[in-house]
Amino acid sequence: MTITSTATTATDTGHGITRTVTVRPGMCGPGSLFPGQLGDWTWETVTAQCGTDVFSARDASGNPTYLAFYYFRVRGDRTLHPRSLTFGDRLTVTSGCYDQGTESVLTLHRVDRAGTPGADRPLDLAEFYERPRGGTLYVENFNRWVTRSAPDSNQGLVKSSPPDFRNDGLPALPAAYSPRAVYREARGAHTFRAPDEPGFTPLDTTVEIEHPVDVVRDVNGVGLLYFASYFSMIDEAALALWRRLGRSDRAFLRRVVVDQQVCYLGNADLDSVLVLGAHARTSTTTPGEEIVDVVIRDRDNGRVIAVSTLHTVHDLHGSHDPKGHA
Amino acid sequence: MTITSTATTATDTGHGITRTVTVRPGMCGPGSLFPGQLGDWTWETVTAQCGTDVFSARDASGNPTYLAFYYFRVRGDRTLHPRSLTFGDRLTVTSGCYDQGTESVLTLHRVDRAGTPGADRPLDLAEFYERPRGGTLYVENFNRWVTRSAPDSNQGLVKSSPPDFRNDGLPALPAAYSPRAVYREARGAHTFRAPDEPGFTPLDTTVEIEHPVDVVRDVNGVGLLYFASYFSMIDEAALALWRRLGRSDRAFLRRVVVDQQVCYLGNADLDSVLVLGAHARTSTTTPGEEIVDVVIRDRDNGRVIAVSTLHTVHDLHGSHDPKGHA
Repeated sequence: MTITSTATTATDTGHGITRTVTVRPGMCGPGSLFPGQLGDWTWETVTAQCGTDVFSARDASGNPTYLAFYYFRVRGDRTLHPRSLTFGDRLTVTSGCYDQGTESVLTLHRVDRAGTPGADRPLDLAEFYERPRGGTLYVENFNRWVTRSAPDSNQGLVKSSPPDFRNDGLPALPAAYSPRAVYREARGAHTFRAPDEPGFTPLDTTVEIEHPVDVVRDVNGVGLLYFASYFSMIDEAALALWRRLGRSDRAFLRRVVVDQQVCYLGNADLDSVLVLGAHARTSTTTPGEEIVDVVIRDRDNGRVIAVSTLHTVHDLHGSHDPKGHA
Repeated sequence: MTITSTATTATDTGHGITRTVTVRPGMCGPGSLFPGQLGDWTWETVTAQCGTDVFSARDASGNPTYLAFYYFRVRGDRTLHPRSLTFGDRLTVTSGCYDQGTESVLTLHRVDRAGTPGADRPLDLAEFYERPRGGTLYVENFNRWVTRSAPDSNQGLVKSSPPDFRNDGLPALPAAYSPRAVYREARGAHTFRAPDEPGFTPLDTTVEIEHPVDVVRDVNGVGLLYFASYFSMIDEAALALWRRLGRSDRAFLRRVVVDQQVCYLGNADLDSVLVLGAHARTSTTTPGEEIVDVVIRDRDNGRVIAVSTLHTVHDLHGSHDPKGHA
């Protein structure tokens, strides 16, 4: 008996890896499961293309080293976005790595609904960065090799790639597409969009909430804050702002995140209290279109550990709003 | 190029399906990711063995129907348990379904570390239920087909199997191993262990905390409470009890859950407030051995929606307690 309808199949033809995937409960929903799945695909892709087993990597000193997420972008549209995925959907995912030196790597994933024309086309940087197609989800993961600088701490992680990590076989990324310029700007401005971007007006309402690290939900299998849990914390802040604006949880679950960028600037110890701040700008031309900026700080030392910008569209008075449905 | 080190491979030889798996960040850690992965394997196994695509199943009326988790057990030992899994571990997982009629199914998973002698042995019910091996994790999932009785509600889910669901090719399960007797008892007693079990003394300290459904973290891709999130809520209650006993979060993360049973009695609407209650019994003979019972209720209607019992062992004064490590 063969498992045809649910197994993930992966083939690597030339540079890109193409997977055919059935969406499972463990990789969809409003939480952080889909970003978590994307991250696992990144580690699989780097393992396949860069000569090192990312899942059990060690640096030259023999210490565990992690291919940490530093910049994460998920960009879709109103027809295909993370919340549009549900049980049983069939996806074609094409993935590939690009050279970013010996200590980091860029991984791109293109997600199409299986069976759509061209779903098996090769990765195309011009399409990815300049001419995205409708109905396609584009994911960028920029990762850096880090290890703990002290066994007792999640702070002060230091660069440390495994000796067998090979970047020299990877295609180059044109400078115009470099994620470094993007996240460098966001790191300083605390937003990925120009603060004075035309067509948007800041809302007066903002929120700032405390989030003690949740050792049940926020921690990964090596005792660090799990990168995907940042997505939940970002949404926790966005939801707090949403409620303060007098909007319903159901409308929140219905909103569409067409684009989200996250820059991970640090980790935190498990006894930390984080402060999640959110503010938003609303479109002056398209009702329901907003830009939401979220900044995550470590309360006690003030360090910013993440910056995220979400581009969302919503309809507060959706005609279809069944109780309990998203 | 082939993806040898990270891809999950699955073969179905005779009755059991054997997978070789690399533990990814998205399937380990103290949260609910590992139970979520187990649940996905159950849906894959049923899809392979019962003639229906569980991921996109519909009942005879054409309504979506879900193979809901009703009883879930994860039983290991001090050497192999959910929290012992970390990035890069290699596992051999053997899975199979057993006949439980036309509206439900039992799925067993046996998890061994890859490469241990006999890791590829067939599923053996006598081993599973009567002579478990050290270093092996045994997982039971009893699932029932349910659909919403009203599109607006997560309450009152009703039985509804898809027409192509085939149970007649499945092996029978001897009555002595039936999960029904187990969960029926727990449903009434609110524990899976005899309340007066010799060798344990109840602790006076108990907790009861409110948990408003978290629409960011507790909801699955079809707008129901996600079965795996119950594991996080159960641990949230267990942690609250742990803290009230004056114990540290780090010691909580180090504790070993050698056995956990959960019975899912209901779902809840997304605007519900749940009440999580926990109490514990401590071994009179083995220091650090405890039985913890957790009951989850819907605050407003009082319905019990889940009962769980955990069998745990801990060492509050572990010699190795690096800050931030689990």
